[in-house]
Amino acid sequence: MSEAAGDFSRLLNPRGIAVVGASNDPQRIGGQPAKILQDTGYRGAIYPVNPKYSEVSGLACYPDLRAVPRPCDVAIIAVNAAVVPRSIRDCGAAGIPFAIIFSAGFREAGKAGAAREAELKVVAREAGVRFIGPNCIGTMNLKDRVYCGFGAGFANPDLKAGTVAFVSQSGGFAFSVVGLADHEGIGFNYVVSAGNEADIGTLDLMADFIERDDVEAVVSYMEGVSDGARLRAIGRRALELGKPVLVWKVGNSAIGRAAAESHTASMTASYALYRAAFAEGGFIEIEDVHQLVDAARAFGARRLPRGRRVAVVTTSGGSGVLIADACDRHGLELPRLAAGTVRAIEQLAPQYASLANPVDLTAQVTGDHERVNRICAHLVADPNIDQLIVRYGGVQGARGEAWANGIAAVAGATDKPVLIAWSRVPDPAQASMQILDRHRIPWLLTPTRTAYAAGVLNHFARRRERLLARPDPQPRPFAPRRLDLPSGACKLSEHESRACLAAYGVPATRARLIAPDAIDGLARSPVPYPLAVKIDSPDIAHKTEAGAVRLDVRNLKELKQAAREILAAARRHQPGARLNGVLIAEMARGAEVIVGAVNDRFFGPVVMFGLGGVAIELLHDVSYGFAPLDREAAHDMIRATRAHPLLTGYRGQPPLAVEALADVLVHVSLLAADHAGRIAEIDVNPLFVSATGVLAADALVVLRD
Amino acid sequence: MSEAAGDFSRLLNPRGIAVVGASNDPQRIGGQPAKILQDTGYRGAIYPVNPKYSEVSGLACYPDLRAVPRPCDVAIIAVNAAVVPRSIRDCGAAGIPFAIIFSAGFREAGKAGAAREAELKVVAREAGVRFIGPNCIGTMNLKDRVYCGFGAGFANPDLKAGTVAFVSQSGGFAFSVVGLADHEGIGFNYVVSAGNEADIGTLDLMADFIERDDVEAVVSYMEGVSDGARLRAIGRRALELGKPVLVWKVGNSAIGRAAAESHTASMTASYALYRAAFAEGGFIEIEDVHQLVDAARAFGARRLPRGRRVAVVTTSGGSGVLIADACDRHGLELPRLAAGTVRAIEQLAPQYASLANPVDLTAQVTGDHERVNRICAHLVADPNIDQLIVRYGGVQGARGEAWANGIAAVAGATDKPVLIAWSRVPDPAQASMQILDRHRIPWLLTPTRTAYAAGVLNHFARRRERLLARPDPQPRPFAPRRLDLPSGACKLSEHESRACLAAYGVPATRARLIAPDAIDGLARSPVPYPLAVKIDSPDIAHKTEAGAVRLDVRNLKELKQAAREILAAARRHQPGARLNGVLIAEMARGAEVIVGAVNDRFFGPVVMFGLGGVAIELLHDVSYGFAPLDREAAHDMIRATRAHPLLTGYRGQPPLAVEALADVLVHVSLLAADHAGRIAEIDVNPLFVSATGVLAADALVVLRD
Repeated sequence: MSEAAGDFSRLLNPRGIAVVGASNDPQRIGGQPAKILQDTGYRGAIYPVNPKYSEVSGLACYPDLRAVPRPCDVAIIAVNAAVVPRSIRDCGAAGIPFAIIFSAGFREAGKAGAAREAELKVVAREAGVRFIGPNCIGTMNLKDRVYCGFGAGFANPDLKAGTVAFVSQSGGFAFSVVGLADHEGIGFNYVVSAGNEADIGTLDLMADFIERDDVEAVVSYMEGVSDGARLRAIGRRALELGKPVLVWKVGNSAIGRAAAESHTASMTASYALYRAAFAEGGFIEIEDVHQLVDAARAFGARRLPRGRRVAVVTTSGGSGVLIADACDRHGLELPRLAAGTVRAIEQLAPQYASLANPVDLTAQVTGDHERVNRICAHLVADPNIDQLIVRYGGVQGARGEAWANGIAAVAGATDKPVLIAWSRVPDPAQASMQILDRHRIPWLLTPTRTAYAAGVLNHFARRRERLLARPDPQPRPFAPRRLDLPSGACKLSEHESRACLAAYGVPATRARLIAPDAIDGLARSPVPYPLAVKIDSPDIAHKTEAGAVRLDVRNLKELKQAAREILAAARRHQPGARLNGVLIAEMARGAEVIVGAVNDRFFGPVVMFGLGGVAIELLHDVSYGFAPLDREAAHDMIRATRAHPLLTGYRGQPPLAVEALADVLVHVSLLAADHAGRIAEIDVNPLFVSATGVLAADALVVLRD
Repeated sequence: MSEAAGDFSRLLNPRGIAVVGASNDPQRIGGQPAKILQDTGYRGAIYPVNPKYSEVSGLACYPDLRAVPRPCDVAIIAVNAAVVPRSIRDCGAAGIPFAIIFSAGFREAGKAGAAREAELKVVAREAGVRFIGPNCIGTMNLKDRVYCGFGAGFANPDLKAGTVAFVSQSGGFAFSVVGLADHEGIGFNYVVSAGNEADIGTLDLMADFIERDDVEAVVSYMEGVSDGARLRAIGRRALELGKPVLVWKVGNSAIGRAAAESHTASMTASYALYRAAFAEGGFIEIEDVHQLVDAARAFGARRLPRGRRVAVVTTSGGSGVLIADACDRHGLELPRLAAGTVRAIEQLAPQYASLANPVDLTAQVTGDHERVNRICAHLVADPNIDQLIVRYGGVQGARGEAWANGIAAVAGATDKPVLIAWSRVPDPAQASMQILDRHRIPWLLTPTRTAYAAGVLNHFARRRERLLARPDPQPRPFAPRRLDLPSGACKLSEHESRACLAAYGVPATRARLIAPDAIDGLARSPVPYPLAVKIDSPDIAHKTEAGAVRLDVRNLKELKQAAREILAAARRHQPGARLNGVLIAEMARGAEVIVGAVNDRFFGPVVMFGLGGVAIELLHDVSYGFAPLDREAAHDMIRATRAHPLLTGYRGQPPLAVEALADVLVHVSLLAADHAGRIAEIDVNPLFVSATGVLAADALVVLRD
């Protein structure tokens, strides 16, 4: 994948397209593109290329790319893998800037294929040709009717153009999704099967699409990307632009991940890190077509709610209850209506209506659209309300049309999102639906889906608000610090690991290393009792498992005995381990937390935080953040754990030193980021948080080459 | 709601229907039923009843119910609430056994309405009339074309009959769901809007429907039911019969619950208890229409998988990855295929196919349905496999028809479920879809939905298997024991609460109560140090918050001081509290767990279990079971917590006394069940679990009148 996105306009909307490997046999991949381009309304020139034919699909066929007339902006490559590099060289010679390579037999096909792909990349760079694929099934520009592909996905000339762009690491699946979404009324403008991404990749295309004025949402079906930082930058840009990236991330389970690796040799970092990246940027994670449809339709209104407060109005109490539940699940609130709103709608609502939020107008108002719409106008104007969800039954025929015009007027008089829980079988021929679509009023197929749509709008809006409120990260508290690290991949002993933390200002329990031969001569403890006594060895990372830890040691006699036993246990546990000596440390009290860092292959240094062993290990209550963190991001990480109320004055306990804890997260993140070239892993476990401060009671730093 | 279900055959399929309050004005509720019955194909007799008319909807109109010819099995009641009781009395006099009461103005409409509803119940019982409603919108029997209702839901004569029965506490919403599900190809046979359920209720109808041979699944849209034990019995029956109850439970969030209470005055116990009941019985919880559709279609095949192992075969690697992820989420496994299977499909699969599970045949096999179906036959025959998911692209036209016939033959040769991930726009006119439907091969609209369907089949099958493996609960370990309880609603002190637990054989730390005036004279501790010293008072349940607990007291001096301080603190905290004295208890060690019980208004005595304070309070890692529990159910509860690995040898620790813990759960459940008339709540917190046994270290029993 290239570092910088180019200008893909000519790739997506070419003036002429060559089809290398064109054929008249529709069973062959090369036999399809010229015909598909013709059948689906491509308006540019099509140039079949094949020395064996003079005509393909009724078009003049050229012996090679150099013979193709200009302008020709794209070459579709549908030849045997072995000759693909030559075709790309020919593109360069013929001045064709882009190629879409269908041919398989590259990285996905073992070692020989990987070598061929490497060669392809070199050749393309030399030839100045950018390409999609290999091993892709093509691209589609629905706006300009450019179907550059093969297979069943391209056999549907009736797809409607819309405002959603789609880049997919699974071609076959993407076009199935496009068909289903189209059936639910969501159209795409650009669809790209990215294939092996040997040149232009998912991130290049996402970055390009998000900037386009004709794109309102980008969908990415993703097994993995190679550059986590760039993914995060795109997420940030999505928030700035107010356009979501709907990301359908797969390959997350162990078996799914193995399958993803086997079929595209794709790059899959830990799903937890993707989720962290999605959570910070303008991503909406989806896992089925209906979520794609609903999110795309909701964002199509180009309105973001200012807060999480929703008013719900229905003509059936049951669906009001359902929407209230679903809103709760999606992080929305149904506040009390303002007194003025209640007074106003009291005048309009029928007997037995419930004027609490959710408002239940009962079936009595069915057919009385004027009354319903006047009530909606009051609800959406309520200062306590940020979004309005309307479920109204009387949407058929002429009355439905009048209702839709009325609700369009209500929506037109506000900038708050107004969402319709449709709940009938959708019929694009119905006037009321057409009116809603024309006015970009999102309608969703069920109450549950409507609450989902309101929820994703809110999530996106809250993250956007947060980003805009503080566009720049806070300055780092101190300059990078020098560490004295041994060379090579290795683990540091606790004492050495503590030194790294100390260099970055992470407070730890007082500790002193005593050499093995100094134990017998100890006259008093170098730190106050009670003590933790532990082996210090770069070869024994799991000290407890080695039987090489004693806690709560209370006097000199116990200390000496503990030290001797620990040394013996360590020698027994791992004969030949290098033993620096025995580490004597003060005992700490407080809430136990864990702060860790790993240097991820795709995302770079990442910080992990969690409270308590059980919560982390069995309940997976941990949060992740990308290094370096600033203080606000550190506080976000702390708040992101469900157990965090333990820190802030739990059940009458005094509040703990959360500021000092945030400092530790920031400082560990700087340690990990400044020394990312050497540090593979940091583990501060446990870190004790008390009312007055924090103290690391153990530490492990793992180095890489 | 009545205790026993009757025979509802004549209610659902009446020979004649009277419409009381019939009118020629379609804007009136009474103006609709006769016309709807005629328009939608009712084949029995329709008898409008209204003294004001001689003819309604072209039918002879009768002055009163006594004038109606026999047989007339149902009276629709659409008159003013005030005259409904009289109409019911007339039903009795006319020998009409069932009524469906549309009229509103009963329990949902305040005190006067509630009184009217109470009167209605008495009148109906005296008259021998069973009824649906009041405040309902009707019933539908699609098989026999009996549309007994009003409103938009009954305006659709094209609904197809199917094999799903639906009972709903929201009428308006139910018929919207029926329309949407019908659009996705799922038909219903019976649909009932239960209204206020003053007589025949949700549970009566569920119990009736589940037994009917023509019903394959029951859907319940439910805000709450009044009889948790009966709900559980229906769940058990559903498992026995192998038919699911798809339950759409709403009113679960705080705001949703409040809304549910306001609009139908429905009965809503804690959602956690519903979930516990759903988890033990044959319920599938759904929260949208597509889940209803998918589960109904999956169960329509009448096959249950013998285990959780799924084979997945696709023609697109991406959808294989997606299905693998979704299967993982739904508790399914994708095991290795048997060696013989791999050998067999190797002969058939194209180059570049991936023969691990998920099997990716690649797009090369598109169109080659014979090969795909032969591979499917091998996969479904694999002894490692319990279900097969097929996603195959080439399903259009004549080839699609041939494929569908072939896969039907594959499915016909096995009793394992075979599910099709359809992934195209569904078209009921397509031959391939008709073939699948005819052979009851479930097709699901997306890969995600297919994995969901396979998941619900598996969940149901595993629960069924479990029930059938042990049809009878184990015998209780001892007879009920007498307790000496004070009268009235009150809290017991810790010492008194411990006595209740002791009577039921729950081990506790040794403890001795010392009267306030005996403290100064204490010569030595009655139990060994270290000690917990606590106030003992029926008026101070939260001893820590009162400052009336000292832990780790290590000698007589500390003990006396602690006792004096505690008494002072208790007096300060709550002047006038009755102080029995100071409880002196040994300290216990081990993993802290909580065992509780509440006597729920709807579900009766329920036991709660969780590990550790944080896991329970912040992470809500608790499980529920219905009292009395047997040992196996107690072990299920323990295993249902995510933190339970802490008990069974966590990180090299010795395994803890899980059997003794299960005993405590059983014994507490017996205490709660035997004394359900008096005990409102039991709280054993903490209970320490060590390697050798369990010890309750605190206890609270709350009594009711």
